[in-house]
Amino acid sequence: MPDSPLSAARPVADLSSALAVLRENGGRVSTSRRALLQVLFDATSPLSVEHLAAQAVPSLDVPSTYRTLERLEEVGLVRHVHLGHGPGLYELTHQTEREYAWCESCGKAASIEPDRLDAARSLIEQSIGYRPRFGHFPLVGLCADCLSAGRHGHHH
Amino acid sequence: MPDSPLSAARPVADLSSALAVLRENGGRVSTSRRALLQVLFDATSPLSVEHLAAQAVPSLDVPSTYRTLERLEEVGLVRHVHLGHGPGLYELTHQTEREYAWCESCGKAASIEPDRLDAARSLIEQSIGYRPRFGHFPLVGLCADCLSAGRHGHHH
Repeated sequence: MPDSPLSAARPVADLSSALAVLRENGGRVSTSRRALLQVLFDATSPLSVEHLAAQAVPSLDVPSTYRTLERLEEVGLVRHVHLGHGPGLYELTHQTEREYAWCESCGKAASIEPDRLDAARSLIEQSIGYRPRFGHFPLVGLCADCLSAGRHGHHH
Repeated sequence: MPDSPLSAARPVADLSSALAVLRENGGRVSTSRRALLQVLFDATSPLSVEHLAAQAVPSLDVPSTYRTLERLEEVGLVRHVHLGHGPGLYELTHQTEREYAWCESCGKAASIEPDRLDAARSLIEQSIGYRPRFGHFPLVGLCADCLSAGRHGHHH
């Protein structure tokens, strides 16, 4: 569905607000939903489905974790980002969505404040007509460490 | 292997030069290699494994097409790019590698001359320390058509 809108983000400050959003949207506050939200509130970076399943208390299986994350994404509490070749990584939504840079040599991801790229974004839009967005897919390149070490290979 | 070098690109101008590169590298000039190279020389944009398999004369099955492409990639005649969520798309290598922009709303890909992004690239490197490369993974954003139509959803 090329034209489907993004799920509207519903960023919240804490677990109880997240549970309130679930209830508003007719969602049950199941053990798995509560457990995954707790892991996401404790996380400092986007996490894989496998990691989330293992960190949840009680621990969950991967298929049900995946279904729960999809539901949390539908109501706007969660989103996923594609850092590298693998499947998406999940995080809570934010008022101002984070953007990411990802090093294709070492695989290191960095969260970037969107306004730090505003000048470059305008320049790129003027030059090629595309307005860059590095939220769902990151800006890919070489990080400072790999640049100074002369590493330029591909991360697999 | 994070530090593995890229396969050195060995761009060539025509099919007979490509076959010469294969022979130099101890590779057999099999029917499937010749057929796939012919499709790639005729192509105007990167193609999926399935598309390449079907277009080849004689037509090939997908697993052997995949293996042949891997071999062509090892010798530097071919590379793949990731446009969107799916698996890689294949094209011939070029002296100056192409970069791509991909619209996350409508899925349209555009080939961009790398030097058109040089100013923005410098600005981004100064700002966040990453030097962008949009060859293996594209620059992702919204194309001019989707921007003017107010479309900003995600392509699936």
